[in-house]
Formats: sequence, C-alpha cells, structure tokens
Amino acid sequence: MNKIYVVGIGPGEYDQMTIRAARVLESCEVIVGYTVYVDLVKEHFADKIFLSAPMTREAERCRMAFEQAAAGHVTAMICSGDAGVYGMSGLMLQIRTEYPEVDVEIVPGVTAAVSGAAVLGAPLIHDFAVISLSDLLTPWEDIERRILAAAEADFVICFYNPSSRKRRDYLRKACDLILRFRNEDTVCGIASNIGREGETVKICTLRELRDLETDMFTTVFAGNSRTRTVDGWMVTPRGYRTEQKCSKVRTGK
Amino acid sequence: MNKIYVVGIGPGEYDQMTIRAARVLESCEVIVGYTVYVDLVKEHFADKIFLSAPMTREAERCRMAFEQAAAGHVTAMICSGDAGVYGMSGLMLQIRTEYPEVDVEIVPGVTAAVSGAAVLGAPLIHDFAVISLSDLLTPWEDIERRILAAAEADFVICFYNPSSRKRRDYLRKACDLILRFRNEDTVCGIASNIGREGETVKICTLRELRDLETDMFTTVFAGNSRTRTVDGWMVTPRGYRTEQKCSKVRTGK
Repeated sequence: MNKIYVVGIGPGEYDQMTIRAARVLESCEVIVGYTVYVDLVKEHFADKIFLSAPMTREAERCRMAFEQAAAGHVTAMICSGDAGVYGMSGLMLQIRTEYPEVDVEIVPGVTAAVSGAAVLGAPLIHDFAVISLSDLLTPWEDIERRILAAAEADFVICFYNPSSRKRRDYLRKACDLILRFRNEDTVCGIASNIGREGETVKICTLRELRDLETDMFTTVFAGNSRTRTVDGWMVTPRGYRTEQKCSKVRTGK
Repeated sequence: MNKIYVVGIGPGEYDQMTIRAARVLESCEVIVGYTVYVDLVKEHFADKIFLSAPMTREAERCRMAFEQAAAGHVTAMICSGDAGVYGMSGLMLQIRTEYPEVDVEIVPGVTAAVSGAAVLGAPLIHDFAVISLSDLLTPWEDIERRILAAAEADFVICFYNPSSRKRRDYLRKACDLILRFRNEDTVCGIASNIGREGETVKICTLRELRDLETDMFTTVFAGNSRTRTVDGWMVTPRGYRTEQKCSKVRTGK
C-alpha cells in the first residue's frame, strides 16, 4: 500500500527526534516540509528527495506529499516539535480523503511545551493549558476567553506563537488578562530556539513577561499560583494539598 | 561535577524514546525508576545498575538517585512519557537543594497526550488543557473547577490518570461536568498502553465515554465543539474561522 508518514522531528537538533522518527525518515524516499524544518534535518538524510513549501501554503504542501505517496514513493511530511500539537497531522488526515489509496501513520515528537519546560525546569508538573496566540485562524475573542478561563482555574499556561511582526502586543494583552486573576509576581518563563543555535531561556515575573519581546520561535510559560523558583529553575509543585513530608533520612547509608 | 539526568523515555517501546535519551542512558552507570518503567528499558541497557522503588515512594526514589550521583556515579532517573508532565523533574529539582554538588539535566520525552493523540488521529491540533483526575495530591474541588473552565472555554481536554481501583467513577464525574457545556455527541477518544503490548484505541461519543472503564495506563481525550471523525480518525480542525478553502487543484501534474 502507498504510505505516508507525518513525523514530529522534535525541537531542532537531530538527537532530539525519537529513534522511530529517525528510522522512519531513513525508510522514506521523499521528505516534505516547511523550508526551515527541511533545513534542520537535511544533512542527516542526504540521499533523500526533499520538497519544501513556504509557511502559509499548508494545504498545497500536504497535497505535494500525497502526490508523491500516490505515485509509489514512501513519503514523510515533517513538522517541528510534534506532528499533532498545532501540527500538520490534522490537515493531512483531512486531505487524505482525496487519496484513499494512501495509508497514513503519525509519528509523534517532543513538542515545544515539553522541550521548553525541560530547559526551564519543571513548570508542567501539574495541570496546564496550551494556547496559541495566533489569530490567523481563530478570532481574538475566542483566544481571550480561553486565557481568562485558564487563568481563573489556576492552570499553568503555555503559549505557542506568542507574537509576530503583525502581533507585537499579543503577549502583553495575554499577560494583562492573566493579571486579573494572578499576582504580578507569578513565576513565568520563556524558551526560544530550543535545541537550536541561539537557544535562550529566561525566568521572570508575570509583570516582566508583559514587557518582553518574543518571536515565533519562542514558547512562553505562565506559572500557576504555586509555581516558584528553586535554585534558578521554574518549578510547579505536584499538587494542591500540603506538600508530602520529605523525610531527611537518606537511603543507602 | 556529579551528574544526574531526569529522562523521559516516551510511551514504552524503546524506539519511541529520543536519540538523546538513549545516548544519555548509555552514558550512565546507574538507572533509577519506578519498577514498571525500569522493566521497559532494562533489556536495552544490559550493563547498567538498575535501582527501582514502588509507586508511592517518589521522594525516596529521588534520594536514592542523588545518593548514587553524589557518590560519583553518573545516574539517570527515568520517567515514562516526559520527565516534566506529571513527571519526576519537579521533585528532583526540589530535592536537589539537599545535594548542591550534583548537576541536574532534564531530557524531555514524548508525553502520553502526544503519543495518544498520534494513535487516535489529530485531536490536539488546537488549544487544549491537560488535567489529571488523581485527587491524591489535589482536592477534587480544584479538579472540578478546572474541568468546568476547560469545558466552558471549549478546550480539547486530555485526562491523565482517568481512574484507578479507588476512583472508578471519576471519569464519569468528569464527563458529567463537560456535558454541562458540550453536546453528548462530542467526539472523544481513549488510548491505552500506547506503544506497549495491549495497545488499545477507541473513538466514541462523550455519552459513551461516560460509561467506559479505564485504568492508570489510559489517556482520555474529550474533543472540543468542532472535533469530528475523519475516516475513523479523531480530528480537531485548526481554528475557529471558516475553514481555509482547500482547492481541489492537485500540484505536480
């Protein structure tokens, strides 16, 4: 059967993809993706045919991949991070209805919420909400409603697409919404270019976050009411009951 | 410097961990973890010393790992899925304050929200909330408040720890809360034992989900108001504006 894989390649560096993702890409003849992501993996899969299309032409990119698969070439569509978290797997499954002869398999990867959390510390140890601040496909009122609900219910919030050239003040607007329910000293963090050249990590307060400049390669974390810093790391405790008693007795002695 | 890694090993199968996670475990002398997770990786790292401790004794397990690192053995603490999403990285960073000579590095992995989404289709393409239904460390009222907020703001909701022997009816209670805001035909899905023997995937309605039995190895997904099935897959569209026009013109011809 004709086969297409939708593969999350993780945050950037080759070794942050799963072993399975690497094996799948190795098994393919054709790799399709957004130009930036293709450049991230190209050197590791030198004998493949690479096809890329720019950012806004997702449906076209998907059909490009299905055409290859339909012609009998085992094909992969790559996504940065995971294939499913704001990724291409949804559109791929929708467009697949035009190519019923092609079998789709989704290969998950490490999404930016998870890779960003790892460089900041442990912000996502408890319940969290993931919200994209891009209003390209979602009206701002819907985004606002989600931010308010997440802030009021004390979720840790992870923002994807916190800003772009056209949306410079969106992160500030988001912070102002959170501030209706949460203290301005709430511990927050940002991670940019995770696992790539120029990786930047910063822990700050919600008040400071409000004034930070970010870009589309930045993931933003707003802590919940109990998130704190521990030796410079951003850490959310595991629950809302009194902390488990951590006995000082050391084992192994 | 003495070094300890907190490593997310992904859902289960060896090839679902990242290349980096495998390299890190290869570089360690000692691997510490909950018994079930140690058994998942043991055969692939045969020359290591494995230490395990049962489920409820997390702080003890962390100190066990730090004692090894403090004694000069490069050590890894492994977690299923990711190290940070309801994982051990938070407690490890808290307990590290007792072992300032040990350097901690967190190696992220594919968490169950992401691996479960991949076998179900593409439920997490748009904003989502992750909620644990375990009230071991969180009072039920707080969990309830989060479920209601997420349902009202139309997040896709991913539940971890949907039930256990002592909490058989928690998923049913959660569904009843969602039903206050969402149609009983809302598309939902469950994924059990992802990437392990006995992997099970089921797509159903919210009404049907209410009556399903789950266990601690199950991850549950409740779609948002626009989630639908596409050829048997669970798919959430990308946004809330009218769908982008998907021209039928095929490329490459």
